[in-house]
Amino acid sequence: MRATLIYGAGDVRVENVPDPAVREPTDALVRVLRACICGSDLWPYGSKPANGHGDRIGHEFLGVVEQTGADVSGLKPGDVVVAPFVWADNTCDFCREGLQTSCRHGGLWARDGVDGGQGEAVRVPQAQGTLVKLPVGEDSALLPSLLTLSDVFPTGHHCAVTAGVGPRTSVTVIGDGAVGLSAVLAAKRLGAERIILMGRHKDRTDLGRLFGATDVVAERGEEGVEKVRELTGGDGTHTVLECVGLKPAIDTAFGVVRNGGTVSRVGAPQYPDVPADFGVFLRNITLTGGVAPARAYIAELLPDILEGRIEPGRVFDRSVSLDEVPDGYRAMADREALKVLVRP
Amino acid sequence: MRATLIYGAGDVRVENVPDPAVREPTDALVRVLRACICGSDLWPYGSKPANGHGDRIGHEFLGVVEQTGADVSGLKPGDVVVAPFVWADNTCDFCREGLQTSCRHGGLWARDGVDGGQGEAVRVPQAQGTLVKLPVGEDSALLPSLLTLSDVFPTGHHCAVTAGVGPRTSVTVIGDGAVGLSAVLAAKRLGAERIILMGRHKDRTDLGRLFGATDVVAERGEEGVEKVRELTGGDGTHTVLECVGLKPAIDTAFGVVRNGGTVSRVGAPQYPDVPADFGVFLRNITLTGGVAPARAYIAELLPDILEGRIEPGRVFDRSVSLDEVPDGYRAMADREALKVLVRP
Repeated sequence: MRATLIYGAGDVRVENVPDPAVREPTDALVRVLRACICGSDLWPYGSKPANGHGDRIGHEFLGVVEQTGADVSGLKPGDVVVAPFVWADNTCDFCREGLQTSCRHGGLWARDGVDGGQGEAVRVPQAQGTLVKLPVGEDSALLPSLLTLSDVFPTGHHCAVTAGVGPRTSVTVIGDGAVGLSAVLAAKRLGAERIILMGRHKDRTDLGRLFGATDVVAERGEEGVEKVRELTGGDGTHTVLECVGLKPAIDTAFGVVRNGGTVSRVGAPQYPDVPADFGVFLRNITLTGGVAPARAYIAELLPDILEGRIEPGRVFDRSVSLDEVPDGYRAMADREALKVLVRP
Repeated sequence: MRATLIYGAGDVRVENVPDPAVREPTDALVRVLRACICGSDLWPYGSKPANGHGDRIGHEFLGVVEQTGADVSGLKPGDVVVAPFVWADNTCDFCREGLQTSCRHGGLWARDGVDGGQGEAVRVPQAQGTLVKLPVGEDSALLPSLLTLSDVFPTGHHCAVTAGVGPRTSVTVIGDGAVGLSAVLAAKRLGAERIILMGRHKDRTDLGRLFGATDVVAERGEEGVEKVRELTGGDGTHTVLECVGLKPAIDTAFGVVRNGGTVSRVGAPQYPDVPADFGVFLRNITLTGGVAPARAYIAELLPDILEGRIEPGRVFDRSVSLDEVPDGYRAMADREALKVLVRP
């Protein structure tokens, strides 16, 4: 089959790889209907050292079950399913606590002999625990929004949930990428009435407003912090959703959070530590978040998509074929595209 | 009156200072029945540069109302009261949220013309909001435990509450000082069944066991982390209560916390930042805690002391007169005494 490989920074190729097959009784084989490129794929795209051979890549996909192993129940060929971006048995103690990203028998896509999502098909380990059946057909118009359940929308949701967003909490979202916009949508869905979006790309912040942002702050750094404080009577917001992962973003987060408030981060951190000095201590700031256990949230988020109350798939502003995936990476890296949908 | 001043590292003196008096209509004058020395007083005792003049010190006290300003209601001369270690109006938005340490009209003892607690009397600003009336007489045997409501016990409690300690969470407490032992007691009170106390002073950890610790780990650093992991099937505990404030303690906290777990810190941090790299992110670790809003917790904790269910005052293992306060500092700094009670 055809699948995407990354050979190093700026070097993504679509090549022939061995066809996947059911190997373990807990596996399923899924033909990919839709995949996409993640903001986190841009980290290796930006800096991965060339290693002479390609590595599989991609961790967000939705597809059709083609075959199941002997131990997989509840799934059958023809089912349309979405895969969270970490596979997991969904039965261990961590999974039962809703932390499938720490599953005792789980792992990451495109690692250790497991397929990546940006390809024609995927062998899914722990299929019964990993895959969530979607009550739609292969041609459903909801596929883009349903695909966001794989990562980007639950990641925004995780950020909002761990921050404690609710009707009585004001919110700042840092970052107008697809995760930031998803965090806006998630915060709105959780009842937040004041959502300040920090971002400077007008087409993106316009979508943020559509998703529920009440204010947009284009300024960055100290100026951005001052602006958010101005908007909040000098106090900052109860919750801050840091959806970037860079040092200036997390510093801004600590700058705009209200005393007693919470900073949650879901941008893969490109920094080693965060401020935790006596000033932060005096202010009773909580830092939370982390890699989102998407699997834990799908059941809760799915009905709102199926019933049309939310449309997280609006983050996709470009669609490519599998062979066009390298150009999709380029477009996202160049900020030509917000998030690229892949139709193998 | 006589009061305690700190002139610099190792130089604490008891001297005559001007008698306090009601100045603002919101003030009250309190004669101190019991005060104490805090672990945090040892930071300036260890390192404060000499400045030629003494600064008032002490922020934990319990006493008798002598006089109230015109705007103070609910308190009258003769009432026995405890003062939390931050004074506050208890009516502003932060106070109503239970964050009296960020009160818009509050402040610290022994700063900006406000008396310290280690003296014969104290002018209490925002007295109606600050002071909590205790239904006991001046000679009550409960005074030591009631005095802990000023700081040390609510600080341990804040650590446990912000960490989310409950019947289903395992707990590691780092530090066998008075705050650490109070955190053990608080965790036990909140229903924790597994409480691992990290400390290496047997007399202190023995009191920790009495307070509810189920395991004691005397090892420190990497060895201590391994030991806690051994005790928890390799996973660490759901919550970690960091009650020291030094870099090795917070590093240990991140080492012994279970994936998805929470580190809460109430030891005034003597470090600028905490690890927040991709490893921490992948594990979904939350960092919380801060300076404890003792005022918020007194109403909840008081009945358990009055009715004898808990005895947090057992952390006091030495009692001194006001003139002996300098020796009390020395004894605590030399670890001769766990926590020193002052009887002016």
